[in-house]
Amino acid sequence: MPDEMTVARSETGDPLLLTPGPLTTSKSVKAAMVHDWGSRDAAFLRINREVLERLPAIVNGGADYVTVPVQGSGTFAVEAMLTSFVPAGGCCLLVINGAYGQRARRILEIAKRRTVVCETAEDTPPDLDRIEQVLKADPGITHIFVVHCETTSGILNPVHEIGALAAKYAKGYLVDSMSAFGALPLDAPAAHADAVAASSNKCIEGVPGLGFVICRRAALVATDGNATTLTLDLLDQSRVLEKTGQYRFTPPIHVIVAFHQALTEFFAEGGQPGRGGRYAGNCQELIDGMRAMGFETLLPDALQAPIIVTFRMPADRRFVFQTFYDKLKDRGFVIYPGKLTVADSFRIGCIGRLDRSHMRLALDAIREVLHELGVASVAAHKAA
Amino acid sequence: MPDEMTVARSETGDPLLLTPGPLTTSKSVKAAMVHDWGSRDAAFLRINREVLERLPAIVNGGADYVTVPVQGSGTFAVEAMLTSFVPAGGCCLLVINGAYGQRARRILEIAKRRTVVCETAEDTPPDLDRIEQVLKADPGITHIFVVHCETTSGILNPVHEIGALAAKYAKGYLVDSMSAFGALPLDAPAAHADAVAASSNKCIEGVPGLGFVICRRAALVATDGNATTLTLDLLDQSRVLEKTGQYRFTPPIHVIVAFHQALTEFFAEGGQPGRGGRYAGNCQELIDGMRAMGFETLLPDALQAPIIVTFRMPADRRFVFQTFYDKLKDRGFVIYPGKLTVADSFRIGCIGRLDRSHMRLALDAIREVLHELGVASVAAHKAA
Repeated sequence: MPDEMTVARSETGDPLLLTPGPLTTSKSVKAAMVHDWGSRDAAFLRINREVLERLPAIVNGGADYVTVPVQGSGTFAVEAMLTSFVPAGGCCLLVINGAYGQRARRILEIAKRRTVVCETAEDTPPDLDRIEQVLKADPGITHIFVVHCETTSGILNPVHEIGALAAKYAKGYLVDSMSAFGALPLDAPAAHADAVAASSNKCIEGVPGLGFVICRRAALVATDGNATTLTLDLLDQSRVLEKTGQYRFTPPIHVIVAFHQALTEFFAEGGQPGRGGRYAGNCQELIDGMRAMGFETLLPDALQAPIIVTFRMPADRRFVFQTFYDKLKDRGFVIYPGKLTVADSFRIGCIGRLDRSHMRLALDAIREVLHELGVASVAAHKAA
Repeated sequence: MPDEMTVARSETGDPLLLTPGPLTTSKSVKAAMVHDWGSRDAAFLRINREVLERLPAIVNGGADYVTVPVQGSGTFAVEAMLTSFVPAGGCCLLVINGAYGQRARRILEIAKRRTVVCETAEDTPPDLDRIEQVLKADPGITHIFVVHCETTSGILNPVHEIGALAAKYAKGYLVDSMSAFGALPLDAPAAHADAVAASSNKCIEGVPGLGFVICRRAALVATDGNATTLTLDLLDQSRVLEKTGQYRFTPPIHVIVAFHQALTEFFAEGGQPGRGGRYAGNCQELIDGMRAMGFETLLPDALQAPIIVTFRMPADRRFVFQTFYDKLKDRGFVIYPGKLTVADSFRIGCIGRLDRSHMRLALDAIREVLHELGVASVAAHKAA
């Protein structure tokens, strides 16, 4: 055992990314980028149109929905969504249980929009009764915002149930589905969602560089005059794209062409059920294997989304996280480098171009590293 | 001659992009993208740090300057620069002679910043005397903005002379050097520039997806509290990058790695003098060849930057621009598809991984297409 060393590499010879994205993508997705296109030429514009047209179906968005791309990371798309939809006189109820909810709050505060916060701990689902009380008590609320899967902990939030409250109280409904989009079911019309934000580099398995917001057309049109910037104005972006087929500002062409290939591979895998099924298998393999070693998950299984799993840090002082991380990296497994604030813990992602066999290799590597570190037990401290 | 057909392709078999960017890049730049990296892992962060550290030298920015990247197109970087530097109580004097100056005006108006405009026609340089009069008359002006090379017409603006006025009247100075950066000389300290915005997909010959602003450190620190958004806040972006080495929000990893390779090739070519020299040769070849056919340039040579050249539209009705464009595209030459508003004209770029031999091929193709169209003379209408 001491001399054994499990080593893994992706199709292109890279370490496997066990992170919440950017993630391991297929070689064919990346190879699609080894060409040049004119940003205003028909060949690229056709590829781009296909990307925009294919996305709404993933959240059951029919002709009532339109994709508005944002040249930037996912957070650019979230800021575009919040600042385009919530008007100057509006107020957004923020459902928060992690860093991405907090980020939305900061975006709205910078934009000088009034906010009301319904917050729970990072390992705790939103309190639906509390949300309804707040909606009843504050008629000035115009919108509700929630993060679909909070990658802070990996918790799955009840987007459809919160959407039912949005519909009941006639509020706009804005969903940050970044790390869940394409892997977890989301029916935008049934959830009464006005806008769903996501990005190219999560569960569709493209490379990073394009955010997008799938908007209900009628709600998007009603945002006229709201935007606080030129580049993040979703309505202006959508109008120019629909009128001319072209972007207002240079698109990340290679990223979009790679995303086109990623979408082709996504639908070939059976779309959301297929992709989500593979990730659920990865997640189960990971959790089962880690529990067999004695690790404890932060979340109970019922709250766990199959995107990223938070494990409690072992109490054994021989378990030094940075050494654990580095030794896994040496073997070709890049786990999430950050720690959580709410609990002493670390995270391992299970999305990207990976399957159960990769997760089993990762578990083998973890066993070897624990042995090298001399960690006898990975039991965590009793929770405070 | 009728059966002859000049056909060109890039190293990767693509049409040559004779546009102001996105442009033809080297195969090695694009091939650098066929890998995956974790956005928070050391391997990528080292590449990113090298990119950020190499850029200021291109505009003679020493330790007083810092590169702040923006995950988006060049316009995202310009909006970040304007909304980070011009405070709520400030006022920006906009030197305008084209679409990119107008765009800056729109950005500031949306941000509710006061603006004063010194505008000249698209084929006319800024009026320095007028600018000085306005600076004397309106002490509320805090900043001056100018576009280095206005790709609307291809005109080169006097950035150093305007910078001297900024220094004389103690104004902040913001330069949109997008299409000129790396090809035309710009000495940021000598020009008294507080900020210079550019992007990955122009004269450094990377792929699109990353904007950046090279900021004078002292001026950047003074922007605290100005920003109107989270994602476009240059100071916040810079502080987190300097403190942690990491991005606040997912970077376009593949675009940055390609940009790293593009910078290596840029410096191998001799940096700005080398790159600018090649483009000047391309431009001369193009103008000489077009004039030999009878085409007229919009700009006199003294105002022409070696980036993109505007030619007056031939008066002959057999010259149908769309057919001309399509037939050139069939031969592997993608010229700029849009027309100018100020004059009936069309544009051909001379930047990207192209040399004089490519320009000569393009001229051959243009001759053939004119013959096919039956255009006997390309003389323009007399200017109105």
